[in-house]
Amino acid sequence: MQTLTTHPFDDDHFKEECGVFGIFGHPEAAAHAALGLHALQHRGQESAGIVSYDGIQFHAHRGLGQVGENFSSQATMQSLVGAMAIGHVRYATTGDTTLRNVQPLFADFEFGGLAICHNGNLTNSYGIRRELVRRGSLFQSTTDTEVIVHLIATSLRATVVDRMIDALHRVEGAYSLVAMSSKELVGVRDPLGVRPLVLGRLGTTWILTSETCAFDIIGAEFVRDVEPGEMVVINEAGIRSIFPFARPPKRFCVFEYIYFARPDSIVEGTSVYEARKRIGAELARESHVDADLVIPVPDSGVPASIGYAAAAGIPFELGIIRNHYVGRTFIEPSDHIRHLGVKLKHNANRAMIEGKRVILVDDSIVRGTTSTKIVEMVRQAGAREVHMRISSPPTTNSCFYGIDTPERERLLASRFDVAGMAKFIGADSLAFISIDGLYRAMGHDGRNASQPQFCDACFTGEYPTTLADYDAAGTPAQLSLLAEIA
Amino acid sequence: MQTLTTHPFDDDHFKEECGVFGIFGHPEAAAHAALGLHALQHRGQESAGIVSYDGIQFHAHRGLGQVGENFSSQATMQSLVGAMAIGHVRYATTGDTTLRNVQPLFADFEFGGLAICHNGNLTNSYGIRRELVRRGSLFQSTTDTEVIVHLIATSLRATVVDRMIDALHRVEGAYSLVAMSSKELVGVRDPLGVRPLVLGRLGTTWILTSETCAFDIIGAEFVRDVEPGEMVVINEAGIRSIFPFARPPKRFCVFEYIYFARPDSIVEGTSVYEARKRIGAELARESHVDADLVIPVPDSGVPASIGYAAAAGIPFELGIIRNHYVGRTFIEPSDHIRHLGVKLKHNANRAMIEGKRVILVDDSIVRGTTSTKIVEMVRQAGAREVHMRISSPPTTNSCFYGIDTPERERLLASRFDVAGMAKFIGADSLAFISIDGLYRAMGHDGRNASQPQFCDACFTGEYPTTLADYDAAGTPAQLSLLAEIA
Amino acid sequence: MQTLTTHPFDDDHFKEECGVFGIFGHPEAAAHAALGLHALQHRGQESAGIVSYDGIQFHAHRGLGQVGENFSSQATMQSLVGAMAIGHVRYATTGDTTLRNVQPLFADFEFGGLAICHNGNLTNSYGIRRELVRRGSLFQSTTDTEVIVHLIATSLRATVVDRMIDALHRVEGAYSLVAMSSKELVGVRDPLGVRPLVLGRLGTTWILTSETCAFDIIGAEFVRDVEPGEMVVINEAGIRSIFPFARPPKRFCVFEYIYFARPDSIVEGTSVYEARKRIGAELARESHVDADLVIPVPDSGVPASIGYAAAAGIPFELGIIRNHYVGRTFIEPSDHIRHLGVKLKHNANRAMIEGKRVILVDDSIVRGTTSTKIVEMVRQAGAREVHMRISSPPTTNSCFYGIDTPERERLLASRFDVAGMAKFIGADSLAFISIDGLYRAMGHDGRNASQPQFCDACFTGEYPTTLADYDAAGTPAQLSLLAEIA
Amino acid sequence: MQTLTTHPFDDDHFKEECGVFGIFGHPEAAAHAALGLHALQHRGQESAGIVSYDGIQFHAHRGLGQVGENFSSQATMQSLVGAMAIGHVRYATTGDTTLRNVQPLFADFEFGGLAICHNGNLTNSYGIRRELVRRGSLFQSTTDTEVIVHLIATSLRATVVDRMIDALHRVEGAYSLVAMSSKELVGVRDPLGVRPLVLGRLGTTWILTSETCAFDIIGAEFVRDVEPGEMVVINEAGIRSIFPFARPPKRFCVFEYIYFARPDSIVEGTSVYEARKRIGAELARESHVDADLVIPVPDSGVPASIGYAAAAGIPFELGIIRNHYVGRTFIEPSDHIRHLGVKLKHNANRAMIEGKRVILVDDSIVRGTTSTKIVEMVRQAGAREVHMRISSPPTTNSCFYGIDTPERERLLASRFDVAGMAKFIGADSLAFISIDGLYRAMGHDGRNASQPQFCDACFTGEYPTTLADYDAAGTPAQLSLLAEIA
Repeated sequence: MQTLTTHPFDDDHFKEECGVFGIFGHPEAAAHAALGLHALQHRGQESAGIVSYDGIQFHAHRGLGQVGENFSSQATMQSLVGAMAIGHVRYATTGDTTLRNVQPLFADFEFGGLAICHNGNLTNSYGIRRELVRRGSLFQSTTDTEVIVHLIATSLRATVVDRMIDALHRVEGAYSLVAMSSKELVGVRDPLGVRPLVLGRLGTTWILTSETCAFDIIGAEFVRDVEPGEMVVINEAGIRSIFPFARPPKRFCVFEYIYFARPDSIVEGTSVYEARKRIGAELARESHVDADLVIPVPDSGVPASIGYAAAAGIPFELGIIRNHYVGRTFIEPSDHIRHLGVKLKHNANRAMIEGKRVILVDDSIVRGTTSTKIVEMVRQAGAREVHMRISSPPTTNSCFYGIDTPERERLLASRFDVAGMAKFIGADSLAFISIDGLYRAMGHDGRNASQPQFCDACFTGEYPTTLADYDAAGTPAQLSLLAEIA
Repeated sequence: MQTLTTHPFDDDHFKEECGVFGIFGHPEAAAHAALGLHALQHRGQESAGIVSYDGIQFHAHRGLGQVGENFSSQATMQSLVGAMAIGHVRYATTGDTTLRNVQPLFADFEFGGLAICHNGNLTNSYGIRRELVRRGSLFQSTTDTEVIVHLIATSLRATVVDRMIDALHRVEGAYSLVAMSSKELVGVRDPLGVRPLVLGRLGTTWILTSETCAFDIIGAEFVRDVEPGEMVVINEAGIRSIFPFARPPKRFCVFEYIYFARPDSIVEGTSVYEARKRIGAELARESHVDADLVIPVPDSGVPASIGYAAAAGIPFELGIIRNHYVGRTFIEPSDHIRHLGVKLKHNANRAMIEGKRVILVDDSIVRGTTSTKIVEMVRQAGAREVHMRISSPPTTNSCFYGIDTPERERLLASRFDVAGMAKFIGADSLAFISIDGLYRAMGHDGRNASQPQFCDACFTGEYPTTLADYDAAGTPAQLSLLAEIA
Repeated sequence: MQTLTTHPFDDDHFKEECGVFGIFGHPEAAAHAALGLHALQHRGQESAGIVSYDGIQFHAHRGLGQVGENFSSQATMQSLVGAMAIGHVRYATTGDTTLRNVQPLFADFEFGGLAICHNGNLTNSYGIRRELVRRGSLFQSTTDTEVIVHLIATSLRATVVDRMIDALHRVEGAYSLVAMSSKELVGVRDPLGVRPLVLGRLGTTWILTSETCAFDIIGAEFVRDVEPGEMVVINEAGIRSIFPFARPPKRFCVFEYIYFARPDSIVEGTSVYEARKRIGAELARESHVDADLVIPVPDSGVPASIGYAAAAGIPFELGIIRNHYVGRTFIEPSDHIRHLGVKLKHNANRAMIEGKRVILVDDSIVRGTTSTKIVEMVRQAGAREVHMRISSPPTTNSCFYGIDTPERERLLASRFDVAGMAKFIGADSLAFISIDGLYRAMGHDGRNASQPQFCDACFTGEYPTTLADYDAAGTPAQLSLLAEIA
Repeated sequence: MQTLTTHPFDDDHFKEECGVFGIFGHPEAAAHAALGLHALQHRGQESAGIVSYDGIQFHAHRGLGQVGENFSSQATMQSLVGAMAIGHVRYATTGDTTLRNVQPLFADFEFGGLAICHNGNLTNSYGIRRELVRRGSLFQSTTDTEVIVHLIATSLRATVVDRMIDALHRVEGAYSLVAMSSKELVGVRDPLGVRPLVLGRLGTTWILTSETCAFDIIGAEFVRDVEPGEMVVINEAGIRSIFPFARPPKRFCVFEYIYFARPDSIVEGTSVYEARKRIGAELARESHVDADLVIPVPDSGVPASIGYAAAAGIPFELGIIRNHYVGRTFIEPSDHIRHLGVKLKHNANRAMIEGKRVILVDDSIVRGTTSTKIVEMVRQAGAREVHMRISSPPTTNSCFYGIDTPERERLLASRFDVAGMAKFIGADSLAFISIDGLYRAMGHDGRNASQPQFCDACFTGEYPTTLADYDAAGTPAQLSLLAEIA
């Protein structure tokens, strides 16, 4: 509704676009998928879907909104029968939030049904899409996932697995897929392993999902990461592993550690919480400043703050209090009220801050809007000095691998150098962790420039694949002549 | 929700499944389409959709529910920009009421976009669908309309019109289609002309729609019926007519006159209201009985009752009053209350009925449930005799041409002869108009048995096409492995 | 929402403001009350409420909207336990539609609880309200019913019945009340008997309600009208009747016969349907005109039309078709579309009307808006002559007895004489039944000018009570300083 | 809906029942009130209301749900015109959550309108209510606030202020009131000062509210606490202070510091955050245990944990991660899934906890349900030892001063001693801060047994007023015979 506006203190973050979950061999498969998607909700809040298979038929429920809004009625859950299920949560930019884009996608093939869901983003799908349309394929969504589905449909190979391999040989980019046919549950990770995918088990039940926190919620145990370029096929006969693709050195997204993943997940063998603390400690070493307090920008800045405070020997305090009851909308009858609305979500803890030299720790600066407001709020509460420390390098480039980022020119770090950024946000000093510092905190001696250990394109501009679908400005091609009105 | 039940006095009627509307050359095309769909609401109440084209892009809004529920917000209407639009209303059996089946269908083709909507039903689509899937086409809906769309997509012809002709040569059954590309508005009627399609104009604006009542609401004038087997193509250059198919004798659905069409429509040159009065008069002549009052079963029985009363010289009276405020659901805490609920929708006008010999006139008996309740109600109100007269022949067979009918074994007329039916509904006498009487009322000397002037398969079992998609029991083939949960 | 507007073809009628229902001695009392309120829905569509009593506690559910919207969940109905219940439907002008005004009202008194509901309107409540506030009574609603409740609370009499009598001695105006204490169900009708109240039974269960159609729906039998000035008290000991007030000659509202009551109700011993037919016949005798067709303005004009047509010997035809699927709102993107919207609700049956001389029969003209549009529509459909006949005298005055009427200056009959009104609505001729003709149709020799047999103040301006609460312009006093925002 | 259940990990806390806000002299009074109520949302989430006064009329909007659900439409905010407004948030036990109980209450009096809202609870209102009903007062709500309103209405004093004083002389218990007449804004605090009330200003605008965090959100400055027993009257002439009551030593609720108030509020001159840290530090001194980590139970346990960790010299770590996206409902198709649902809201940070000796810090144990689940979760994550430390004394008694507490027999501390409680929750050790330790942390030498410096009845059973409305078991008297069904 036009009378409502997004919350004025909107999160200034890159946004993870998807989380996936698949389960094979449990009588309450869909209920476990719903729990798993709850645990993955931070990876996408705009739509959620589950497809189950009962041995005869597939059952789907997909809707806009969060998991709890879509999977809380007994009638819905009881309809999702079967011992196999896959599920998906999705974040999407406004124009794309229509029901036809909600995953899992499903299609009836010659060989039967197939449901598929995708975390990541392809970088060469547009040309393939045009070619498929030319030969008579009809697209219903604007997701790149549907390109994969059509490639499977038009593959001349015989089995589902062979058709999937055939299809994936055609695409480039980042993908962690979970798919379900009437016979098997399949998980695949792109050859670079940009997005995570993990394998777990619960007794005789197998689970494939984006993060280990989804194992915890259902009491499953972590088995191992799916390897970059690996396809895992689970059926009645058991589990098998295939490596059908070329195997370049892996390039896992380092930003999963900095912000996207949940702190209680273990990602590629490393605790996210520990990684953030280590990054905070490295940041403290790199950019020391005398101060009285280390204050996290809630809530994502907390682990790095704890690491920073311990390394710097400065007390960690909750100098900014978050209001847990803030909803998504607030009405602003006037500019004056809009400005006041800034404090709806956060408030400075004046008793703690007044007269103090304060270090604020946050994980990133995207457009700089939140940082500016936070610095102003902390100053108004009486801070004598405000030093901002950021637990990532400056984000100078967009991401094309399944993360929602503003266009390059709206990134503060692409507009200013660090001194200019400090001035923009109004801080007495500003420092980011260095790119080598980040790699050190992740357990390396530093960044291997000739063969980076991670995908760090948003900091360096070094994209590990070609970007065929985007023009020089990073603008994607238009996919459909149809604008669906919600 | 499971706690609500459908109204206990549910309509015991065959149900028309669709209405279509297309408009070319009006700056408020979508608003006119919405008005037209309002006028066609009796042809389908479960979903509604409009697609417009603004010269660059197509704009769609489609939703479950009635026209008013989907096209009443200014934001929606303002988004449907363009001088060309098509729209659809749809009735669907429960299992199929999912959003992906809501029309108009839209697809991006090599040649651009195409939106299409369909009144009728194909009788050989299943085999074609299987063949298309085998070659890699992916179906998103379970509508037979999508078969046409895929046939267009995979046609090797060059123009939209040629591809449509190519596609329609493959299908059998009933179809009145309205389609819109970026260049033209197209209307087509199947060679038998089973469902109606009319052409109208409003100044320089052309309209194609199911019934003339949709012209009245927008102030347009009726030009002519689209002919069976005719394709009308409207574009900037004007209007042209093509007859690409073989031209068998026409077989218009006679039940459109009996019940489906609105009484204020002119169908194939005949006023529906007048036709119903003539059928009522013929019925009076065929099945005379001494009585005090002629009473219509509200509301569809009124025109035939007026004709019957005039021909029989017996007063026409409103002996059954309809409650206009009845909603769609009513809760029945017990069987006792459920039984009382029968009178929510209708009540006998006791002061008029008590002690009288009553003739009830209705248009059809399907399962007999409503008739049984009405007869009981009229008796309880003190009627001395209750004679039921039906302005159609007994409906002994299902329809496969776009009408929702129960399976054959649930049709009362397939279970009992007329005497048995009279006993079942509890009437003192029961008579249906004869099949020849019906044809006489429609202006013929009687039914031409070797080449019937109408499609009357629901009365005679003589289907004018093969029924490739149905088994001997009339059960359709399963189309998708997916059950979507609303 | 501001983007939605009321339907452009809004009903131009006086509106009955309330219906009441009470039941004593049935294990499913509340479910019967809900059914009864369904039958009374025509007396008020903006709110509905039921209070039951289970022997220990009262249970209430009250809400804005129609009966079906409020009493369709099993949880609600199961909560309304007890063998005694009262219910209410209400129409209210916009400003008053807040939840605190929804009836039945309930209050905890010294003697226990009392629920009360009211059909009618008091004409001296404002002064009493001021006096009660002065002594410390707090009002929660702006209904005059609450004045009665406070008078009961502050009465010094001992029993509920004596307190009710005490309270009602203070008030003037029209009231048909149904009240329920922990001991008894009470029905009262004001001494003039302006609004109806009837007594029925279903085995050993007693029912008090506004119209007999509410008996039909639950299968109860009509016993008798409650007399003007009578109080009926029903408890475990049985039923008794009290006449505590002076007994002036009765003045039942004649408009209940013309429009408010349902045609299938028997009101004060007379069938409403029959009365309307007799009024139509009298109208035909008074205002003959040569014509080809008699056409009712749907739906309320039908019975009078049948009577008119029979008396005039002119065929009755459905010349205007009503669209049953029209919702409450329609969006008008432009004036042009707004004007077209007129035909959403009704359409002229052109095939019947074209070239004919038409008599339109309606029950009343209030502001004249509907009549003007109907006449225009019928002309556009080709009528050669349009003669409007109205089955009530001109409505020149507002009602203050429980009917929603526009202010006097907006009544067409207070602005023009009949010739002026004919011109305003565009009819070739216009005639109203005469006041004496109306009385003749009701079985009298004519109106007794010195002691009219009915309340006919809306036609004559002769109000049967003083109007202490209204100024000369008929504007009511302001009751509360609070404006509640919905 | 019955199919949805409250979240399985429901908060095991005492619940503050209300927050109040009043503003005088600002053109956007209601918008500021809405912002203030957002800041007070932690004091009540089940209903919210605002009443404004525009110089002529009062305007009210009150609804069930949170502030954002009720005050986010522009239409609503624009209707709440005027330079004076009061607002209220409320938590209520299930049975009472009906719209008629939502505050502010409003009444039309002889002297004009008065709106009033209340934080606290009266302990002698039942007898007064009975007496008022006996003399003819009608109660619409079951709130004790309405008793005050009726006492004002029936007072024989002349001015609003004198009537309020007259009324408040009759009542006992805890109340921080904000009231608004057409002339003035009034704030009053009960003589013991149990609940907070603070005075602030924003230029020439005065604000009265429950906590200073509501000043921060609108940029107002804190002026001073309203004194126990003080009445502050603000009108066009300025602000004045009255002390109309006896002045016993004050007894502020110590639990406001422990849990109810926001950590960023300054209450009675003390920072809540600092108080919690001092309590944590004192707790560490009193109940030392060797351990590897101090982990807060999120989110309320964080400040005490920081204090504990610093005093104990043990690292503070986020060992339990809270899921920010958890909604209010979750469906549990089976007991198995219900059990898993425990981890929806919180998850143990296994990487941090495994093999460690852990101290969990929480603010209170009420029924023990949450503590049991948290301890189990931490053990499952591999903790070697789990020691629970609580920053309040054992809560052995119910509160009757505006806090929602379970009945006494459901309080874990009233059923077991500390050893028994430790066993119940499954901890290796359990310790509560001592009552004297709590007073020391609050800056006293210990508790003054003859004249306690705070209200600590929930720990000691020493209630500072009589409890006339409650029987020995603490069960309140029944107030109304009516059960309203939502």
